Formats: sequence, C-alpha cells, structure tokens
Amino acid sequence: MLSTTATPGVAQRAFRDELLRHGLLIATGVPGVYGRSAELEDTLARVDRLVDALGADDEAEVVRFPPVLNRGHFERSGFLESFPHLAGAIHCFDGSERDHRELLRTVEAGGDWSAALPVAGVVLTPAACYPVYPMLAGVLPPDGRLVDVMSYCFRHEPSEDPARMQMFRMREHVRAAEPETVVAWREMWLGRVEWLVDALDLEARADAASDPFFGRAGAILADSQRHQRLKLEIVAPIASEACPTAIVSPNCHQDHFGRLFGITTADGAVAHTSCVGFGLERITLALYHRHGFARSEWTSPVREALNL
Amino acid sequence: MLSTTATPGVAQRAFRDELLRHGLLIATGVPGVYGRSAELEDTLARVDRLVDALGADDEAEVVRFPPVLNRGHFERSGFLESFPHLAGAIHCFDGSERDHRELLRTVEAGGDWSAALPVAGVVLTPAACYPVYPMLAGVLPPDGRLVDVMSYCFRHEPSEDPARMQMFRMREHVRAAEPETVVAWREMWLGRVEWLVDALDLEARADAASDPFFGRAGAILADSQRHQRLKLEIVAPIASEACPTAIVSPNCHQDHFGRLFGITTADGAVAHTSCVGFGLERITLALYHRHGFARSEWTSPVREALNL
Repeated sequence: MLSTTATPGVAQRAFRDELLRHGLLIATGVPGVYGRSAELEDTLARVDRLVDALGADDEAEVVRFPPVLNRGHFERSGFLESFPHLAGAIHCFDGSERDHRELLRTVEAGGDWSAALPVAGVVLTPAACYPVYPMLAGVLPPDGRLVDVMSYCFRHEPSEDPARMQMFRMREHVRAAEPETVVAWREMWLGRVEWLVDALDLEARADAASDPFFGRAGAILADSQRHQRLKLEIVAPIASEACPTAIVSPNCHQDHFGRLFGITTADGAVAHTSCVGFGLERITLALYHRHGFARSEWTSPVREALNL
Repeated sequence: MLSTTATPGVAQRAFRDELLRHGLLIATGVPGVYGRSAELEDTLARVDRLVDALGADDEAEVVRFPPVLNRGHFERSGFLESFPHLAGAIHCFDGSERDHRELLRTVEAGGDWSAALPVAGVVLTPAACYPVYPMLAGVLPPDGRLVDVMSYCFRHEPSEDPARMQMFRMREHVRAAEPETVVAWREMWLGRVEWLVDALDLEARADAASDPFFGRAGAILADSQRHQRLKLEIVAPIASEACPTAIVSPNCHQDHFGRLFGITTADGAVAHTSCVGFGLERITLALYHRHGFARSEWTSPVREALNL
C-alpha cells in the first residue's frame, strides 16, 4: 500500500491521515486517541470472533473486566518498576467547596490542576491480563486454569503512528499451571497464530522481542528477555513496511505473577503463567494496510475468514 | 426478589453478595469495580441489541470512542464545575531515572505517589456522549445530526451498591438540531423506552430528575433542573424496591453544548442537543433483580424480547 520511507514517522503519519480521510478513525485532538467508525468496529469484531474460533475447543473461563485495575494489585505487579512512563494513574477530587473554587480558578486560568486531585483506588489497565492474576490467587485445580479476557488498555505513548494508540483493545488467553503445561500451551498457540496470519494474508513473522523497559537498567532487562525468548512477537506492517509492529504477543512470565499473587499448583509449587495477547486495533489496521481501504474488494479467502 | 429494608445499604450489599455468589460479578477488591461473567456479558449484549432495534430506523451515525476524553474538551464541558467529585483525571509519569527511583521508594513504603505524576492529555469519559459534542462542532446539515455511541464511563462513587459501579457501559443516542426537533426527538424516545421496559417486564417509571451537583450551589442547580424537567429518568428497582435507580435517562441540554463547542444549525443559530442514555449494566442487573438468577426460567415474553 504505502511505500517504505527512510524518514521516521512519515509513513506513520501518512497512514493515519488516510485512516482519518476514509473516516475509519475520528480525530479527538489527542495523538493516539481516536473514535472508530461503524465499519472499523465491525472489522475489529470479526477479528475478535476469529480469535474466538481459534480457542473454541479450550473451554476457557470467559471474564470481562472494565479498563481499570485495583491500584494495590497494580503496585504489586511490578509494572511501575519496568514501565513507569506507560502507566496511567487515576486521580479524583475529594476536597471541600473552597478547594473546588480554587480548582475552577486554576482550570479557568489554564493552569495545572494536578495537585488538587489525589490518587484514587484504581489505575488504567495496562494489559487485559492484569486483573486475571489476582483472580487466580490460591491453589489451582490439577489442570491449572485458562481465562479468556478482553479490554481496553492504556499506554501513555502519545504518537502519530496509528499502530501506537494510547487506548486500544487487547484480547488475551491466560494460562496458569505447572511450567511444562504452560510452555506447551504457548507452543500450541504459536501454531494457531500462524494459521490466523495466513488466513488473513498478513505479511507477518515471529520474532524474539523485548518490552520497552524504562531507563538504563531497563536496557539490560530487555536484553535478558530477548535472550531467553520469554516474549515472542508476531509483527506485521501496519503503517510502514520498514517498521512492522507487534500484532500478537505470546509471553511466558515464568513464576513472576505466581509469586506476586500467590498462585500455586495443586501440588503446592508456585504456578507459572503465560498469556497470548491479540492487539485487535493493530490486526484490524494491518488488514487495511495490506488489503486496501475498500473492504468489499479484499480477496475472497480473507473475506471468508472474516465471514464478510 | 429481595425484600425491602429500611436500613440504607443493607439491600444493596445483599444483592451485590448474591451477584458475586452466583458468579455474575467478580470482586476486584475495589468497591464498584467488578469483573463480569460470560453470562452477564451475554445478557448485557442482548440488552444492547434491543436498543439497536429501537433505533434501527433512524440511521444514526455509529461511532465508538475509547473511554477517555481530550482533557481540553473536558475542561470546557463544565463537568468540573458541577461534578468535580465524580471526575477521573489521568496522570502519567514523565520524570527522570532519579525521579523513577524516588517513585518506587514511595510505592514500596506504601506512600502517596500522586505528586510524581502530572496530569495527562486525557481524562476518563464521564458519559458516553461527551466525545460527541466536539465532533459536531461547526454547521449542522439541515436535518441536524444523530449519533449512536457506547462506551465504558467512569464515576468516582465507590459504593457497595452494585447499581452504582465506578465503571459501567452507557449506550447513547445524541441529537443535535434546532430546539423543536430536539424536543420532539426526546418525546419519541420516551415512547420507545416505555416499550422497552414493558418488553423486559421491569417495574419502571419515569420521573423528573436532577444530576448530583456538587456543593451548596449545586443544590440550587439541581432544583432548577428538576423544575424545568430538562432531565428525565426512568427508574427501576435494582438492589432495592424502596430505592429504585435510573436505568435510562433522556436529557435536554438546551444550547449548553452547542454554545461550548460551536455547534450551529444550518440557519446559523446555536444548536440544541439532547441525548438518551441507557445504563447497560443497570438494565441488566434490573433484569436479574426482577426475574431471578436463573436466566433459563425468565418468562417467555422476556426471553423472546432478549432473543434468548
């Protein structure tokens, strides 16, 4: 679709502008925050149903959380250690009428009203699976547990790249069990994801990946994560051929969440966990990038896969 | 279902505990923030489709926004003047590695880390229609505009009453046009809502309502709003027969949003706006309250209306 360019950001902005021009995204004045048209929502729902189909035989527990997380669970999760720059805390006013008048004066003057609002009991969900680990606390049944979640997630990375939204939906399956089961489960999903990207005819490839850890110490963590291949990413071109973006991410957390939230296997060991996350907006945008803006002209196999 | 009680909060807590015990809601440790079971989500989706059906002939523009709002639009909307206590601002870290170490020490010590995170470019959406008004800025076509939205909304009212969630979904239709058109449109929706509550056999009634304005000056605003019947509410018992809760709310804003966001009619006047909002969780919970926890045993007419 769009030609590759050597200037960073140009292809991203061009693709975003095309999405706005076709009315698939609606600008809100904030980079990375868009309204979605009826067609975009419909395409995304079809991608979501394709993920349903992939996991249909697994009988996962289906749970849906709102896009906020218990702040205590968030603090315990380690997210603030690794990704402070991506987090979204929620602050709420609890002052007097006098404080309220002061707040309004500050807003009126275009000032910073941060100080008037202390932190509340919830933060924005950074990944759909975060509310699941506290829910799994305790002893797992002999087969472990498998949970299917989906929610809007927040990442504070204001960007003109439509593949890097500040709020986007992530569909995830989360497995908690003993280590071998969890590793085998992730392998199984890699096969399914391969089927998915073939069915949608996306030019995707798997790659060892690392999270965008904060700071200099973070660079070492990222190297280690990549080296151990704990995080894989399926990347596909979205806004640019030269810089493909992760559309699916199968992660092994080893005993990280098991230790933090007291999840143990039936025989008393700390449970391992793994999740496979589908970036629903990213897969949807990858489809438009690959197949064009006229959805009615997408190839028959792709339209059949999406039940279009 | 639950007997009426004179002690405030008892019936609410009892109904919440029943919802948790039946697994329809999942506790997160934060009052008013719950996971939803597959069945609850399915019932809610059926209610949402019933709203689809009510408005099917209107050919509304369907748009979906993520549950955050441009902070500048939020400041302009007047929400902070009237409802500062319900708002949710989003704060994000943008400090150095040194600031990060200080942040982690504060979190570790169980301290208040509010000050480390300045306010970001977005706030949580307080009602699904808020992102619509900036989108309507400019001159409307001769017939005005009609927009169909749905999103998770945030209200900071931590409560044990399951009908008062901090995050819940609101489906809305929003009309912008000249005053007579807007008033007639709201009247039409009142008829549709009557059909809806009959179809679902909810013991609902319409009432002049007022928003929970903040402070002493707020009490005067609330009186005025009630007196002018600008806000109607369809209330139904959810957690308690004695204290029914609003499940649908048709509002007239007169020229409030038209003036704030520069929405004008084709002949150059400030447009009036109105919205009708459906509290999807509240309608869903009202169904369980009214008809019992065994969905398969709901009466035939209700099951037919929900296509169960």
